[in-house]
Amino acid sequence: MKSIGTLYQSGDWKGEKHVPVIHAPETVKSGEPIEVKVIIGEEIPHPNTLEHYIGWVKVYFFAEDAKFPVEIGNYDFSAHGENGLFTEPNITTRFTTEKSGTIFATSYCNIHGLWENSVELKVE
Amino acid sequence: MKSIGTLYQSGDWKGEKHVPVIHAPETVKSGEPIEVKVIIGEEIPHPNTLEHYIGWVKVYFFAEDAKFPVEIGNYDFSAHGENGLFTEPNITTRFTTEKSGTIFATSYCNIHGLWENSVELKVE
Amino acid sequence: MKSIGTLYQSGDWKGEKHVPVIHAPETVKSGEPIEVKVIIGEEIPHPNTLEHYIGWVKVYFFAEDAKFPVEIGNYDFSAHGENGLFTEPNITTRFTTEKSGTIFATSYCNIHGLWENSVELKVE
Amino acid sequence: MKSIGTLYQSGDWKGEKHVPVIHAPETVKSGEPIEVKVIIGEEIPHPNTLEHYIGWVKVYFFAEDAKFPVEIGNYDFSAHGENGLFTEPNITTRFTTEKSGTIFATSYCNIHGLWENSVELKVE
Ligand SMILES: [Fe+3]
Ligand SMILES: [Fe+3]
Ligand SMILES: [Fe+3]
Ligand SMILES: [Fe+3]
Repeated sequence: MKSIGTLYQSGDWKGEKHVPVIHAPETVKSGEPIEVKVIIGEEIPHPNTLEHYIGWVKVYFFAEDAKFPVEIGNYDFSAHGENGLFTEPNITTRFTTEKSGTIFATSYCNIHGLWENSVELKVE
Repeated sequence: MKSIGTLYQSGDWKGEKHVPVIHAPETVKSGEPIEVKVIIGEEIPHPNTLEHYIGWVKVYFFAEDAKFPVEIGNYDFSAHGENGLFTEPNITTRFTTEKSGTIFATSYCNIHGLWENSVELKVE
Repeated sequence: MKSIGTLYQSGDWKGEKHVPVIHAPETVKSGEPIEVKVIIGEEIPHPNTLEHYIGWVKVYFFAEDAKFPVEIGNYDFSAHGENGLFTEPNITTRFTTEKSGTIFATSYCNIHGLWENSVELKVE
Repeated sequence: MKSIGTLYQSGDWKGEKHVPVIHAPETVKSGEPIEVKVIIGEEIPHPNTLEHYIGWVKVYFFAEDAKFPVEIGNYDFSAHGENGLFTEPNITTRFTTEKSGTIFATSYCNIHGLWENSVELKVE
């Protein structure tokens, strides 16, 4: 069977405009709100037109003692020129966790497919 | 015919925990990125459990010369206790517009239904 | 305050291509799976291009003894010409209920805004 | 870097209740509407409670000459007991393609993470 998992792309976000850039603290206290900013195209802007755009970002957390990742949120970027309106692929979300683990951000370009990135989070 | 439109609830967010609080600039320059923060329960926290939670926020912009609103984005809050993880109903999104108009935020509580709020945005 | 609720449009789906057409049984047994088909443009097709498309449908159920509607599902139509692919605004969903009430379908056109329709469901 | 792609699980849907079952024609004519049904738990039902449920399904198409997959649709299952309402993880979607390729269905359980399946589609 083919696997969608093999179709996720990544790379250095300083050179590859599709890679989600994740801004998050490295260390937090248990239960303290964690603000995570995800930006696509922070260094090199990605096109934002009706024909070519970033459709969404999903953020997951994979605790170090867990077997499965948990979805934190899904963020759809809806406007790409309608009546002069453009949604930027740039969101901030907030969550709490009692455990250390990995924050994953995945994103979708309607022309260039699925992308991902991750950072580690330490809970003290 | 019945209308879903009549089922949107609102109120003063200082007393009603479901009303989305919208933080946005009052005035921006044309094409300048506008950061909009939407929080549910900023003054009085809303429950965040597997049984009772805020499911999503949608943000629309209705330009003053427009006939129809345009969706800026949709934001799903996915974790409500899974493995000790809680997504907070608190997001920041970014968009650009060349026209003045109204920013609407709508939200959904799985127990208490649909809510809304709006603020005016002036483009100079 | 302005209300997004006033911006939902409706009409006769035989003449207005944006109105969601809801196919559902009129009567079901309690707990029996209910199949609901929602189609936009069943009689008069709606455009489906990168510039103009139906973005999503949401389905709600408002039980006759309830104070608030409950969301059954959200359905995003994502492809509008990418690599020759077109998602049609046409879905079937399934749910169960023990109570009679109203099924609402709402939809969003990126150019023509928010639309709605409803049908009654009797549980015996 | 860790990869979310490695976290997609699969298996035989006759024995593993999380695997999305895809019902689609094997062969279609170019541009002819293709109806795809995706069911989670067709053989062995998956739990559907506020604590444990299937959150969503995403469907992609990867044309045989393409470099990237294109998202056909996203389907959120929203009700898990609210006021006696249960959305079943069972949808039908429709799309058209001029090219042969692979239909992927991915799904998310709030407790058991990400799952996937795929079938081949031949366009004559
Ligand atoms: Fe791209
Ligand atoms: Fe509530
Ligand atoms: Fe339209
Ligand atoms: Fe499960």
